Amino acid sequence: MITRINHIAIVVADLDDAIRSYQDRIGLTLRKRLHMPEQEVEIAFLPAGESMIELIMPTSEDSGVAKYLAKRGEGLHHICLEVEDIEQSLESLASRDVQIINETPIEAAEGHGIFLHPKSAHGVLIEFLEPYPHLSDKPE
Amino acid sequence: MITRINHIAIVVADLDDAIRSYQDRIGLTLRKRLHMPEQEVEIAFLPAGESMIELIMPTSEDSGVAKYLAKRGEGLHHICLEVEDIEQSLESLASRDVQIINETPIEAAEGHGIFLHPKSAHGVLIEFLEPYPHLSDKPE
Repeated sequence: MITRINHIAIVVADLDDAIRSYQDRIGLTLRKRLHMPEQEVEIAFLPAGESMIELIMPTSEDSGVAKYLAKRGEGLHHICLEVEDIEQSLESLASRDVQIINETPIEAAEGHGIFLHPKSAHGVLIEFLEPYPHLSDKPE
Repeated sequence: MITRINHIAIVVADLDDAIRSYQDRIGLTLRKRLHMPEQEVEIAFLPAGESMIELIMPTSEDSGVAKYLAKRGEGLHHICLEVEDIEQSLESLASRDVQIINETPIEAAEGHGIFLHPKSAHGVLIEFLEPYPHLSDKPE
């Protein structure tokens, strides 16, 4: 059961500059900024209604995000669809022959997620995410 | 004033097949399907919370969307941010030196919109949209 778009992720080369663009020029508001050393990224969240724009900057040169940036340049990276129960979604997707990148849910900034292979979604990288309980309310 | 993400647009080669993937496998529900001869596209909308996934298939070989598909393949195309007043947004964006592709709002399937140049949004094509009045309610 998909409840909303949790976020849309955009890969950027310079997070400070991207925050300035999306906040001061495009008109969104920065909610939080995180460094995630394990994923080798810094990220910023800017709400838009019940969803968020997530800006992602790689902090190393060999992560998946860094390679994506090197190959394709800045731009749209993935869509995150929020679900109520990630284990149930995983089972349900597998039963419908959707190709899933992760065998079990992984810890993301905002909850537990899995990624579908873009081959199963017409070229789009889609994340399914069950938010941590304290983050499950809609943005104020 | 950005009120929500109206839709995320995905370019596809075969709309029937894409609807099957996003509905029967990923788990969204088709709300409507439109042919827009002037834009040389067929589109389908599948709601996710207060937003929609928009699948776009070119119906000619020389439209912008067709060229995008030929060059980059299927995948994410643009984000549409909903605003209350498109004329006001246009003025406000111009005053902040955002590069805008359209000099005046154009008619889209769901309202009047303008597109920002990806140079002004770190590689992302962003639409600003004021929905037609009868479409301004949130999806049920």
